[in-house]
Amino acid sequence: MSGNSIGTILRLTTFGESHGIAIGGILDGVPPKIPISKKEIQKELNKRRPGSKHTSERKEKDLIEIFSGIFHGYTTGTSIGLIIKNQDHKPKDYVNLKNIYRPNHADFSYFKKYGIRDYRGGGRASARETAIRVAAGAIAKKYLYQKYNLRIIGFLKQIGDIKCNTIDLNRVTKNKLFCPDYDCLPLIINLIKNLKKQGDSIGAKIGIFVENVPIGLGEPIFDKLDAELAHSLMSINAVKGIEIGDGFKCVNQYGSKSYDEITPQGFKSNHCGGILGGISTGQNILISLAIKPASSISIPIKTINIYGNRTVIRTRGRHDPCIGIRAIPVSEAMVALTLMDHDLRNKAQCK
Amino acid sequence: MSGNSIGTILRLTTFGESHGIAIGGILDGVPPKIPISKKEIQKELNKRRPGSKHTSERKEKDLIEIFSGIFHGYTTGTSIGLIIKNQDHKPKDYVNLKNIYRPNHADFSYFKKYGIRDYRGGGRASARETAIRVAAGAIAKKYLYQKYNLRIIGFLKQIGDIKCNTIDLNRVTKNKLFCPDYDCLPLIINLIKNLKKQGDSIGAKIGIFVENVPIGLGEPIFDKLDAELAHSLMSINAVKGIEIGDGFKCVNQYGSKSYDEITPQGFKSNHCGGILGGISTGQNILISLAIKPASSISIPIKTINIYGNRTVIRTRGRHDPCIGIRAIPVSEAMVALTLMDHDLRNKAQCK
Amino acid sequence: MSGNSIGTILRLTTFGESHGIAIGGILDGVPPKIPISKKEIQKELNKRRPGSKHTSERKEKDLIEIFSGIFHGYTTGTSIGLIIKNQDHKPKDYVNLKNIYRPNHADFSYFKKYGIRDYRGGGRASARETAIRVAAGAIAKKYLYQKYNLRIIGFLKQIGDIKCNTIDLNRVTKNKLFCPDYDCLPLIINLIKNLKKQGDSIGAKIGIFVENVPIGLGEPIFDKLDAELAHSLMSINAVKGIEIGDGFKCVNQYGSKSYDEITPQGFKSNHCGGILGGISTGQNILISLAIKPASSISIPIKTINIYGNRTVIRTRGRHDPCIGIRAIPVSEAMVALTLMDHDLRNKAQCK
Amino acid sequence: MSGNSIGTILRLTTFGESHGIAIGGILDGVPPKIPISKKEIQKELNKRRPGSKHTSERKEKDLIEIFSGIFHGYTTGTSIGLIIKNQDHKPKDYVNLKNIYRPNHADFSYFKKYGIRDYRGGGRASARETAIRVAAGAIAKKYLYQKYNLRIIGFLKQIGDIKCNTIDLNRVTKNKLFCPDYDCLPLIINLIKNLKKQGDSIGAKIGIFVENVPIGLGEPIFDKLDAELAHSLMSINAVKGIEIGDGFKCVNQYGSKSYDEITPQGFKSNHCGGILGGISTGQNILISLAIKPASSISIPIKTINIYGNRTVIRTRGRHDPCIGIRAIPVSEAMVALTLMDHDLRNKAQCK
Repeated sequence: MSGNSIGTILRLTTFGESHGIAIGGILDGVPPKIPISKKEIQKELNKRRPGSKHTSERKEKDLIEIFSGIFHGYTTGTSIGLIIKNQDHKPKDYVNLKNIYRPNHADFSYFKKYGIRDYRGGGRASARETAIRVAAGAIAKKYLYQKYNLRIIGFLKQIGDIKCNTIDLNRVTKNKLFCPDYDCLPLIINLIKNLKKQGDSIGAKIGIFVENVPIGLGEPIFDKLDAELAHSLMSINAVKGIEIGDGFKCVNQYGSKSYDEITPQGFKSNHCGGILGGISTGQNILISLAIKPASSISIPIKTINIYGNRTVIRTRGRHDPCIGIRAIPVSEAMVALTLMDHDLRNKAQCK
Repeated sequence: MSGNSIGTILRLTTFGESHGIAIGGILDGVPPKIPISKKEIQKELNKRRPGSKHTSERKEKDLIEIFSGIFHGYTTGTSIGLIIKNQDHKPKDYVNLKNIYRPNHADFSYFKKYGIRDYRGGGRASARETAIRVAAGAIAKKYLYQKYNLRIIGFLKQIGDIKCNTIDLNRVTKNKLFCPDYDCLPLIINLIKNLKKQGDSIGAKIGIFVENVPIGLGEPIFDKLDAELAHSLMSINAVKGIEIGDGFKCVNQYGSKSYDEITPQGFKSNHCGGILGGISTGQNILISLAIKPASSISIPIKTINIYGNRTVIRTRGRHDPCIGIRAIPVSEAMVALTLMDHDLRNKAQCK
Repeated sequence: MSGNSIGTILRLTTFGESHGIAIGGILDGVPPKIPISKKEIQKELNKRRPGSKHTSERKEKDLIEIFSGIFHGYTTGTSIGLIIKNQDHKPKDYVNLKNIYRPNHADFSYFKKYGIRDYRGGGRASARETAIRVAAGAIAKKYLYQKYNLRIIGFLKQIGDIKCNTIDLNRVTKNKLFCPDYDCLPLIINLIKNLKKQGDSIGAKIGIFVENVPIGLGEPIFDKLDAELAHSLMSINAVKGIEIGDGFKCVNQYGSKSYDEITPQGFKSNHCGGILGGISTGQNILISLAIKPASSISIPIKTINIYGNRTVIRTRGRHDPCIGIRAIPVSEAMVALTLMDHDLRNKAQCK
Repeated sequence: MSGNSIGTILRLTTFGESHGIAIGGILDGVPPKIPISKKEIQKELNKRRPGSKHTSERKEKDLIEIFSGIFHGYTTGTSIGLIIKNQDHKPKDYVNLKNIYRPNHADFSYFKKYGIRDYRGGGRASARETAIRVAAGAIAKKYLYQKYNLRIIGFLKQIGDIKCNTIDLNRVTKNKLFCPDYDCLPLIINLIKNLKKQGDSIGAKIGIFVENVPIGLGEPIFDKLDAELAHSLMSINAVKGIEIGDGFKCVNQYGSKSYDEITPQGFKSNHCGGILGGISTGQNILISLAIKPASSISIPIKTINIYGNRTVIRTRGRHDPCIGIRAIPVSEAMVALTLMDHDLRNKAQCK
């Protein structure tokens, strides 16, 4: 139980290093007779896949293979084995990084903790690991959509100083940057282009919107729905902040002015972000995430090697100017896995 | 496993309703031979205890009773049974609330989920439940302090529009508001006085500072230290946002400017808040929390009853104008429990 | 997680030493709206209670107190706090045992493991701990009976050389020895009387019969129903063997002769004991347990003290000549908790 | 969490159907820097591999592939991905079994539970799944051997009416039947030959002997070492009984005669099988298992199909006359995984 599993009834366990043979996972606890195809999973993976001009140029097809648990197009209730072979792994690229702690990367903390590490491309700490989360999340999304018509939409809220003022969720899936504001889109494309040229990276703010949420998801006290969403989202590489509903805007709100009035027709507002007492209210769930700028940049930065000597590092090539973009499908997947787990937990105890 | 437990090796399980006979908990996984006295636990509970002029006037002595697991002043390695009897419970105060959904409270979501609820004072959803967290956290604090000299200091960063500009941690424990800035203190006291008069409440921003953190705490992938801290802190009533290190400031940072340079003498900055790749770096851990204004206010607010009819509610008496204050010792306790759990997990696998 | 919890969705966590203030437990995961009274729980506890002429003479009323989770006669879905105060604890009786390892007791292994122990009456290792299992089991029994008419009947199969040949389950609850064979009863009573006189103890074989079991309980692979029953039953003090269905009789059976033929009317036999592939078949579940003789006897036996020196020990007074008898209600409780947990797990995933 | 994981700190999660593409597993919680080679794992797998004249003739090379977690010959502390491709899968062999419930197989209970099943060769319920347990167990064995010189030796104690009277453990690894008694060996070979000719199967009794066990493994109350061993061993297909130490012989033992005297030189006997109060005493651990005869036999047996109509079934070809033989390396693996998990748990809390 060294951290490679998440969930209680629906439980994802993963393995794999960035430049090993494959990454993979086991999704356990999926009910039987859910229709799911390889194509549906692949579609989600393609959203996260690198290789576009806005993201890393590492060429990974991220082809999903299903080894078990799905039979004749339906889940069987047994554990689902998911594998993605690594294709464009060039371990040689990393030999020069073998003994260096890249700043803001996990190199330092992994080496201090384990005394040994697979240094190729971040090894286990690489965000490549998140591809399996997306694959598993595709199954959870399907389950939730089929059962509740529930949809999870992640989108760019801000990147650097560019804020999306118009949040048009219909637009999100129509551009590869998950941008909801067409006025911002050219500005963002330009920003990314410049960052690529300069070899720099930038942070971002992600929004997540969930509609058609059933009432009653979430277990009180420690496994509150918001607490478990915070857990699963903060486990995504580079996430440094999370807000539910009004989030940090609460700090200077008055109780008399920021409460969500309940009327016979339902709630009149949604300051709470769809969760009260850790349990979903049936309103839309609203989340924001802060994503730090990628640590791998081609501008030289100062650090030390494992012997404690000063050195300078410059990460060449294939990296993301804004990891906030590819973090969006990963965030959606984590929300889907958490909600589905809580739906099963609720079913166990309350229905 | 309906949400009343937290932790992996160190595991706290709790029970108890706000106006039942008692609240209690079992802390399992504490190593043997840790010296701990009732007095040390009581001292932490007193920090959270209501009854001061700045907080709720409910009179609870919150006297801890230790039923097992500690023998002749030392832990024995067996499970520790902790009980706090409820004293000032006046269930009659709540009869009029029996059929009403108080806005921003858990009433609505609990009733929809369970179809039954102990309506007295919020029942299980009451923040009274957090007293046991503080008691258990006292044991974790002792363990961490004794082993590493590790200290966890929670403090007020902001309340309403009053921001603490000077963060002097030595001052925090010297005032009942956990305020680190003596210039702000009179302003805050005045704000609370006015809120009490008006029967209103306000939000707050809490800071948590952890010093003398060992390197290597945190398990990669899903049980990253920051992910588990987010989980445990977001499980505290009224927390709506969490930041690690720079948090939402990352959104417009550049990778080339916001990295923490590593030198032979250590890190030159701490943007990351003491955690890289989900593992502690040995730097101070820095966390911020957003706390929403208390939902129980004596200004009348609009809502419905369980039959769907409109009504108006006004919570009388004994409530906190800013729950952000009493949330501080609870936050410290949750950080302590999470860090101690990860210390034991690290010991299991890596030492 | 040092072993004081059991179950996945329905989860019991316990605390308490034999001669401390109280023993207690938290039962988490019980669905809301199950009717349950203190009286129903007490009735089960009375079956296990010492104080009869056939068992230990320690006088414990074992009065259950319910601190939370039950409101107006119904479970609320929140965690249930259960407490039993210790009454007839005479710690002084044990001062002379402080530094001695009683053979076949846990003294040696506890002290070697923890380096510290509450030596009073076995401390945490005492079978007194099982009273809370019975209290929690009473709730599980009620749930299973109400939902499925499911009944769990434990009974004496053999004690020393006396075998019960006639298994009349209607008789089991009508005598305090849970004996199903009235021809054996006087023999057993006589055996126990003689053992008491001699200060000796004897082993026993327990049978457990479960009727009206729903089909589908049990999770394949590692959490097979029989595997989890084995776990929960082997966790009872003094259990040294367990059989499901034919058990060790299988060793010289032929596949062609010992299979359970399936007919349109159901199974023609029940060699498998009601479980196939780890999943309940709907037949009766049949289990046998081997119970070792109690270690506390008043015949002097040889051992060493904690300093490694030889000594002789003689346990005075109040002990059970056959712990197999009081182990029966405990076994029923563990089966109930395991079956209810699996019913909830099945509900989560398969219904 | 539908049953495909086992262990607390060391945790094995598996997937895979008998006639799918592959079976696999993730072993999480292995400490870093344990030297382990593919060859060492393969060696264990070869012990369980079918294809000898005494076992099933299904031709599976059972070649292990390690996808992650081992780097340059050492574990890295990250999760270990293990895959075994299925080679000799002939799903067509099973088309005629599609709608039939094979007696004593999991067909009936799986179909009733899930309403869908991969009927090819038992699907997930096939003992083929245990190959991954053996692979993971090889890593645990290596860890235990390297740290404590601990060895786990499984052997045939009885098969049908043939009892091994001489238990010479040196002989066990020198014959493919794990027989410790060379006088019995020709009798057993003859028995198996005849069973193959007749198309029948037979039960067996397995012994497990563990030497050089450290003191202190096992967590009191519910996670006692014997309880967790019972769980992990009873989860192996066809196990119907388990005994620790004297097991069912306890039933007619007297307390005064069957205790293990402690002397300054250690224990004088080992009735308890190396475990007291659920914690290892440092003596050898002694376990017996009852294995039922294989359900797949080529003698026609009566059953029904999924429509409830009577039919007769005869399993052709490639099956084991005594699954007790191949269950031996699986049992060793489960013991190794359980002991290693408890060693890590003990390390977390007690060292």
